[in-house]
Amino acid sequence: MCGTVGGTVGGTTVGTTVGSAGSSVGSSSVRGMERVIDVDAERAATPGCATVVHLNNAGAALPTTATLETIVDHLRLESEVGGYEAEAAVAGRLDGVRSSVAQLLGAGSDEVALTGSDTESWTRALWGLALGGGLPAGRRVLVDHQFYDSHYLGLLQVCAVTGATITAVPATADGTVDVDALEDELAVGDVALVSATHVGTHRGLVNPVHEVGARCDAAGVLFFLDACQSAGQLPVDVGAIRCAVATATGRKWLRGPRGTGLLFVRRDLVGSLVPPGVDGAAARWDDPTHYSLRDGMARFTPFEHPVALHLGLGTAVDHVLDLGIDAIAAQIDVIAEHLRTALTALEGVAVHDGGSRRSGIVTFTVEGTGPAAVKAAASSAGINVSVTEAAAARLDMGGTRPDAVVRASPHYLTTPEECARLVEVVAGLLPA
Amino acid sequence: MCGTVGGTVGGTTVGTTVGSAGSSVGSSSVRGMERVIDVDAERAATPGCATVVHLNNAGAALPTTATLETIVDHLRLESEVGGYEAEAAVAGRLDGVRSSVAQLLGAGSDEVALTGSDTESWTRALWGLALGGGLPAGRRVLVDHQFYDSHYLGLLQVCAVTGATITAVPATADGTVDVDALEDELAVGDVALVSATHVGTHRGLVNPVHEVGARCDAAGVLFFLDACQSAGQLPVDVGAIRCAVATATGRKWLRGPRGTGLLFVRRDLVGSLVPPGVDGAAARWDDPTHYSLRDGMARFTPFEHPVALHLGLGTAVDHVLDLGIDAIAAQIDVIAEHLRTALTALEGVAVHDGGSRRSGIVTFTVEGTGPAAVKAAASSAGINVSVTEAAAARLDMGGTRPDAVVRASPHYLTTPEECARLVEVVAGLLPA
Repeated sequence: MCGTVGGTVGGTTVGTTVGSAGSSVGSSSVRGMERVIDVDAERAATPGCATVVHLNNAGAALPTTATLETIVDHLRLESEVGGYEAEAAVAGRLDGVRSSVAQLLGAGSDEVALTGSDTESWTRALWGLALGGGLPAGRRVLVDHQFYDSHYLGLLQVCAVTGATITAVPATADGTVDVDALEDELAVGDVALVSATHVGTHRGLVNPVHEVGARCDAAGVLFFLDACQSAGQLPVDVGAIRCAVATATGRKWLRGPRGTGLLFVRRDLVGSLVPPGVDGAAARWDDPTHYSLRDGMARFTPFEHPVALHLGLGTAVDHVLDLGIDAIAAQIDVIAEHLRTALTALEGVAVHDGGSRRSGIVTFTVEGTGPAAVKAAASSAGINVSVTEAAAARLDMGGTRPDAVVRASPHYLTTPEECARLVEVVAGLLPA
Repeated sequence: MCGTVGGTVGGTTVGTTVGSAGSSVGSSSVRGMERVIDVDAERAATPGCATVVHLNNAGAALPTTATLETIVDHLRLESEVGGYEAEAAVAGRLDGVRSSVAQLLGAGSDEVALTGSDTESWTRALWGLALGGGLPAGRRVLVDHQFYDSHYLGLLQVCAVTGATITAVPATADGTVDVDALEDELAVGDVALVSATHVGTHRGLVNPVHEVGARCDAAGVLFFLDACQSAGQLPVDVGAIRCAVATATGRKWLRGPRGTGLLFVRRDLVGSLVPPGVDGAAARWDDPTHYSLRDGMARFTPFEHPVALHLGLGTAVDHVLDLGIDAIAAQIDVIAEHLRTALTALEGVAVHDGGSRRSGIVTFTVEGTGPAAVKAAASSAGINVSVTEAAAARLDMGGTRPDAVVRASPHYLTTPEECARLVEVVAGLLPA
């Protein structure tokens, strides 16, 4: 009943056997790949699959039982032996979480920190650059049109302090960052930073971040990657992408707990960043008028942190590593395209995802029914979707594009039958 | 076996019936008060009491079963219905947590935010003041000698950016902030901010923060209160103390979860603070070059937060409210003085707590055995204590005062028998 759908790898569709919405699925694995995902087993290991059709993985995904139990076990340990004492007992495992995160991102263990959210990671890295002198007045920050509100708002705030300015690099007709236009902007010679979004939160678009990184590298300009919607759904290899900073969250595609985030800072950059807010773990108190930031990622690693949640994040990341991110990406690609195809087939439904390459984020509007009402109707049918509004994506939404869209974000756990249930709800909202 | 000891209220000892260490206890309640704490019942509701002698409540206290189960229940709900969907289901309860925190601090519900730690609260409030223009070059920040490293380091960092300077107000002979000296410094007229520590982390001293607040108020100078070691062990009434900002953690005396913090900002100040790092919950994205911080504490309230932990914090704070902070304070005062008396009676042990009023933090050194070795010996005997080093308290430790001390911090749960076990371990380390 919950068979695995075929996969798209490297732009070539392999073994795609899913028919129209609601059809049964012929294949039991992603063929043509070394690793395959056993969706039935994954769903059995995920309590929420029994209770809800969860198409809000771009919001917060359902954790596995193993991730949940990792957290609960540590909370119980804390309650039995004390919070600090419990942390001391799992110090090696916390090191292991950082190693797993590093492996996920193709980074060194000394290049990653665990945080409370993607925004916290972004804020501390961006302010770290600014306070380190890296965003001076008269210099520009280049951004893409998929830029997310929390990152853009932080950038506006920082630039108001330093006097740097922001330029949105033109997008191609399909919404993707125009890499040639980026190169032209870089050639001006006044760019301090390029920051680009791997996967837009509101439009299902995958930006060509490897090409962005290559152009930045050639121009000798820092590149910060927003991997909030890509970590856990697509390969994110910071070396191949050539970014100096990458930020991500635990709760979305990684299926980790709420209140967790990831930060990568390249080894050669971290020493020049001065993140705002330091504690005894991040700095030394030398004397009444002096302090020294500690070397490496220690300056980004607060003494106080939610140990149980970070251990749970480790379990979630290890599960991604076990499954293989290529297999996950292929599975998501197929199920998302399947959902898009089924929604597009409904007269009165418009799918708004742009990009030559598209993600697990499927956005659409329904004629005659506003996004919030679609979400409510889905919720009444036991289906979780979300709504994205222009206020969260001002560089891309609004104007000739919609002010709000419904966002359905299937994961590798999602079955064609679940997609069919959403399509049925949407069809029921359309004029007869 | 786990009887309640007598209490000290308003400087007058009432009903203190505890004898020497290890003696049985005659009274079953804090007499002379409306509320009494049933220590046996509290211990029965605290899983850790069965497994460890926890004298590290100034590090992280043992939670109740109810607090633990609040967290676990919400994590399970998230795993069953989705992380965002679960938050929507408990929105009213999250409002209730803020109301409880407000009640604890004598504040309005619109004046508090839940954060990830005391340091996060401090960082965002302090930087908020600096970015709002409140710490300009040439102005001074007055601090006390109990100042904690994470607060002082943050202050050094901010002042390096703005050009403000720091002055440590002289302490009286017993280590307490000298309120007359504070008044003299305020009279100079160049003070932008006074920041004082309610309870020192390393010396068991309670500063006269009501008097500090009164002097600041008279001088028209902002007062930020570090309540990290006082919230949950002493009454903290921000109105009576007349502070504009107060910061605290969940994990210490409040018995809340790790990874949680509290922030109070007085209603008339919040609009002039610009905390670094904003997201869609803290600000509106008006257009590509403008944003607006939201009114009130929204600017301090990130969209992403550990919902389960914050609900757990609410359960912990409600328990404090149920027991009554006066009863808790009285109980801690008596058990801590009991422990000090027993340690002082050992030849070769020096108790280092200063202050005319002392807290639940008991600090000492043992002749011939370093603090780390004392901690290890206690740990081997199933007793949790901690070590505080001068690196965390440079304005007060080192020099003629010790470079490191053992810190034993009993809570209202702690029994005289538990204190006696620590005293026995310490006695065993002394030369025969």
